[in-house]
Amino acid sequence: MKFGKTSGPVNTLKLQLDESTGVPAFLRIAQAVMRDVRRGRLHAGQRLPGSRTLADQLGVHRNTVLAALTELESQGWISTEQARGTFISEALPEQLAERSRRGLAPLGVRLTSEPDFLKPREFELPRDVLHFSAGTPDPRLVPIELIARTWRRVVRRGGHRLLEYGNPGGHPGLRAGLAELLSTVRGVPAKAEQVVITRGSQMAVDLLARSIIEPGDGVAVETLGYRPAWEALRLAGAVLHPIPVDSEGLDVGALERVLKKTRLRAVYVTPHHQYPTTVTMSAARRLALLSLARRHGVLVIEDDYDHEFHFEGRPVLPLASADEHGVVAYVGTLSKVLAPGLRLGWVVAPTELAERLTRMRAVMDRQGDHPMEATVAELLEEGELQRHMRKMRTVYLKRRDLLVKRLRAQLSNALHFDVPAGGISVWAKTKKGIDVGGWAKRALRLGVSVHTGSRYTFDGAEPGAMRLVFARFNDAELTRSVSALAEACPPSR
Amino acid sequence: MKFGKTSGPVNTLKLQLDESTGVPAFLRIAQAVMRDVRRGRLHAGQRLPGSRTLADQLGVHRNTVLAALTELESQGWISTEQARGTFISEALPEQLAERSRRGLAPLGVRLTSEPDFLKPREFELPRDVLHFSAGTPDPRLVPIELIARTWRRVVRRGGHRLLEYGNPGGHPGLRAGLAELLSTVRGVPAKAEQVVITRGSQMAVDLLARSIIEPGDGVAVETLGYRPAWEALRLAGAVLHPIPVDSEGLDVGALERVLKKTRLRAVYVTPHHQYPTTVTMSAARRLALLSLARRHGVLVIEDDYDHEFHFEGRPVLPLASADEHGVVAYVGTLSKVLAPGLRLGWVVAPTELAERLTRMRAVMDRQGDHPMEATVAELLEEGELQRHMRKMRTVYLKRRDLLVKRLRAQLSNALHFDVPAGGISVWAKTKKGIDVGGWAKRALRLGVSVHTGSRYTFDGAEPGAMRLVFARFNDAELTRSVSALAEACPPSR
Repeated sequence: MKFGKTSGPVNTLKLQLDESTGVPAFLRIAQAVMRDVRRGRLHAGQRLPGSRTLADQLGVHRNTVLAALTELESQGWISTEQARGTFISEALPEQLAERSRRGLAPLGVRLTSEPDFLKPREFELPRDVLHFSAGTPDPRLVPIELIARTWRRVVRRGGHRLLEYGNPGGHPGLRAGLAELLSTVRGVPAKAEQVVITRGSQMAVDLLARSIIEPGDGVAVETLGYRPAWEALRLAGAVLHPIPVDSEGLDVGALERVLKKTRLRAVYVTPHHQYPTTVTMSAARRLALLSLARRHGVLVIEDDYDHEFHFEGRPVLPLASADEHGVVAYVGTLSKVLAPGLRLGWVVAPTELAERLTRMRAVMDRQGDHPMEATVAELLEEGELQRHMRKMRTVYLKRRDLLVKRLRAQLSNALHFDVPAGGISVWAKTKKGIDVGGWAKRALRLGVSVHTGSRYTFDGAEPGAMRLVFARFNDAELTRSVSALAEACPPSR
Repeated sequence: MKFGKTSGPVNTLKLQLDESTGVPAFLRIAQAVMRDVRRGRLHAGQRLPGSRTLADQLGVHRNTVLAALTELESQGWISTEQARGTFISEALPEQLAERSRRGLAPLGVRLTSEPDFLKPREFELPRDVLHFSAGTPDPRLVPIELIARTWRRVVRRGGHRLLEYGNPGGHPGLRAGLAELLSTVRGVPAKAEQVVITRGSQMAVDLLARSIIEPGDGVAVETLGYRPAWEALRLAGAVLHPIPVDSEGLDVGALERVLKKTRLRAVYVTPHHQYPTTVTMSAARRLALLSLARRHGVLVIEDDYDHEFHFEGRPVLPLASADEHGVVAYVGTLSKVLAPGLRLGWVVAPTELAERLTRMRAVMDRQGDHPMEATVAELLEEGELQRHMRKMRTVYLKRRDLLVKRLRAQLSNALHFDVPAGGISVWAKTKKGIDVGGWAKRALRLGVSVHTGSRYTFDGAEPGAMRLVFARFNDAELTRSVSALAEACPPSR
C-alpha cells in the first residue's frame, strides 16, 4: 500500500461515540473513525495511535479497540504496515467509485501460455453490415412472442422446482420430448436418459471431448470443417488428423488409410450437410464409416447441426439411426431452428457414455437452463416447434432459390456451385485466378461481409471459395448483397 | 444387421409408380418400395432383385435404380450385405418407435478410465424429506412472478438481439450493473469488461481452472471445503494441497510453509464465510494472504458465494477490494440470493485474465444465457434485486436465531457451535464419542437429511460435525427437523 505525503501521527483521537443505539462498543468506535474520515478530520495516510493508547484515551478495554481496528481494516478504512503502525487507508470505501473508473490493478501473476487457436477475435456481429457470412437463422423470424409467453407460463407453473438444482443431464420433459422426436422423425431410437441436453452443439462437442479424450489421442476431422469444434477437441488434448472431403462427404477410404497407421479415439464428422460444403455423405460411405468405427473402436461424433433444413426429398437419416454397435454420439442443436441465443443442443449417446457426460457436465456448470429447456419441451409437445420448423423450411427454400437465381444471373463468370439439397448456405467456388480475399475486402467496403474458404480449411489456406448464407436475408437483402458482390468482383482473366 | 427367418428373394418387383407428381423417377421408385413394405407386400429380411434386373423390369436406366436404392438405404428401408445382396431392413422407419423402447445399442468403444472423483451420485433432492443438508435458498421465497414478468418484458423488448450470438463474456447490461454493485457495495473497483458472467460459481471455477492451470500445477485448497470446486480444479490437472482451516479461516502460515517447498499456481479460498464452517477470515490473515500471493505469483481464487447473508455488522469486504497487485480472481454467484436454477455467477479479474476467460468461455458453450442475464440486469437497475436481498437477509436471520435457540434447547448435550455471523448454515461439532454417521442415518429414517462433516473434508474423514442449513426451513420445519435430530441423537456417553 502506498502512502501520499507523510502526515504526522495523530496523538489523540477525539472520537464522538454514538451512545444511544445499543450497538456494541467496538462498532461505535469504528463508526466514529469512519465519520471523522468522511468529515476530513482524519485523512488518508495519517497514522493512528497504538491500541493501548487508544484504549486509555477512550476508556475501553484494549480488546474492544482491537476489534474496532479489525472491523475498520477489514472494511478497508485503515491498513496496518508491519513495524510501522496503523494508517488511514489511501483507498477509502467512498473513493472506490473513483477507483472503479480506473478498474482493477493489472494482472500480477504470470499466466501459462495460451493455445494459439484461442486468439482474440470478434464475438459479435458488427451492425450496419449485411452478413452473408453469419450461419444463423434470420433473427426477425424467431418466434419471440411465443417463446416469451411460453417461458412465462412454464416458469409460473413450475418455477419453484425449475429454479432448484435438477439433473445435469437436462430437464426430464425435454429429454423425453427429444427422444420421441428423434426416434420417430430421425430414426434414432434413443431413450430419454440417452439424451443429454447441452448448451448448443458447442458444449456438446466440448463435453464429449473432455469426457473421452486423453492428451495425445488422435481425432479425425474434415479438412474443410467447423473450427470451433476443432478448438474444443484440441483443448482436451486431441491431436487432429484432417481427412479430405469431396462431393460425397468425408473420404472414408482416406480415413481407413490413417487408421492403418494410427490409433484414433474419435472422428468428428458432419454427414448430413457437410460443413461448410453442404454435401450429403453417400449411403455407401455412411455404412463404411460405421463399420470402420466398429472395427477400430473409434467413436463417431456425428454433428447434425441443421437436420431440419433439407429441401430435396426427405432428410437423410443420421448415422446414429443405423448404429447397431454403439459407436455413434449424435450431436444436434436448436440454434438453427429457433435461435442461437437459446443455447440448446444435445448429445444422444449409449447409456454408459450418456451417464459419463452427465457427471462431467455437473462439474462444468452443474446443470443447464431448465426453465428454457422446459419451455422448449412445451413447444415440442404442443407441436409449435414442428410448425415453426416447417415454416422456416419453406422460407429458406425460397431464399435458396432466389440466391441461386441471382448468383447465376450476376456471377456465373466468377463462381460455380452445386445447388445445396439442404442447409442454409451455398458453397461457391471461385473461378481460377480470382483473388477471393481481395474480393471479400472490397465487398465489405460495399457493406456486405462474406467468409472465404480459408476460414474453414484445416491449414488455413484459401481453397478459392465463399460460403454464402441465405437464411438471414429477405429478398431485398439477398438481391442487394449479390449485387454488391458482383460490383466487388474482380475482372475475370 | 441381423435377418429373421430367411425369405426367398423377390424375383420380380411389381411396383406401382406414382406418375403424376413431377417427382424424379428414382424417388418414385423408392416411394413405391416404401409403400409396399408398409402394406406388407414386401417384408423384413426379403432380398431384392439385382439392380440390372430391376432396371429391366421397371424400364428405367440402371443409374436410376441405383439412386433409388441409395435413397432407400440412407433412409433405413433396405440394407446391403456385401456379396449377399440387398434386403428389406429388419428395422424399418415405422418400427423405430418400437426400437426406441429398447434404446440405443450398448457402447461399442472403450472409454478411458474416469477420474475417481466423478463418481455416480444423486443430482436431485429426493422429495418427502426435510433437507437440513441442501445449501440453497428456500425455493418458496424465489420471486418467481417478478422473474417471469421481467423475463418476458426484456425478451419481448430486445429478444431479436438477445437471442443472437453475443459476447461470451456476458450481456453488457449485467456486466455493467454488477461492476457498479461490486464497486459501491463491496469495494471491488471492477470495470464492466473485468466482470465475466458465468453459469454460477461452478462454471466460474471450472473456467478459471481450464484457463490458468496446466497439468501438474499445484493449487492450495481448504482442508474443509467445497468439493465441486476441487473437482473442477482436478479436472484441469491440478495437484491439490490441503491447508488447515481454524476459527480465523485458512491458516495462511501453513500456506506459507507449503509455498517454501512447492510452487503453487493458485489458492482456492472462501474468506468471507468459510465453506462449510462459516468463519470469517481475520483481517491480519487477509493481508498476509494477499502479500504472500504477490510475492509468490499465486492467483487467489476468492469464492464469495454468499456475500449478502451477513448478519452481524456490515459484510466484510472481499480480498479483491484490497488487491492492489492484481492477484485475485473474485468469484460470486446469484444462486444463493435468487435461485440456483438461474445459473448466474461471475468472475471479476484483471483485464488480461478476464479476456482470456472470455476466449475460453467461447469454446465451452459460446455464450451464457443472455435473456436471463438481461433480466437480472433489469432487476438490478430497478433495485428489485437489492430489495429481495434485504428481505432474504431478514428472513434468514430470524431462521438462524430460531435454529440456534432450538439446538441449544434440545441438543446442547450433543452439539456445540458458534453462532454464525453470516451464511445460511450452522457448523455444529458433535461431542466426543458420538457416531455422527449413525446419527445421520437414523435422522434420515425420521425424514430429515443432514450432511456430516466427512462430506467437506479433503481426505473424506469424519471430523465429528454436521452442517445444518437453516435457509430452506420455515419455523415449523426448523422445529420439526431439530426434534427429529434430537430423537435420532445417540445417548451421550
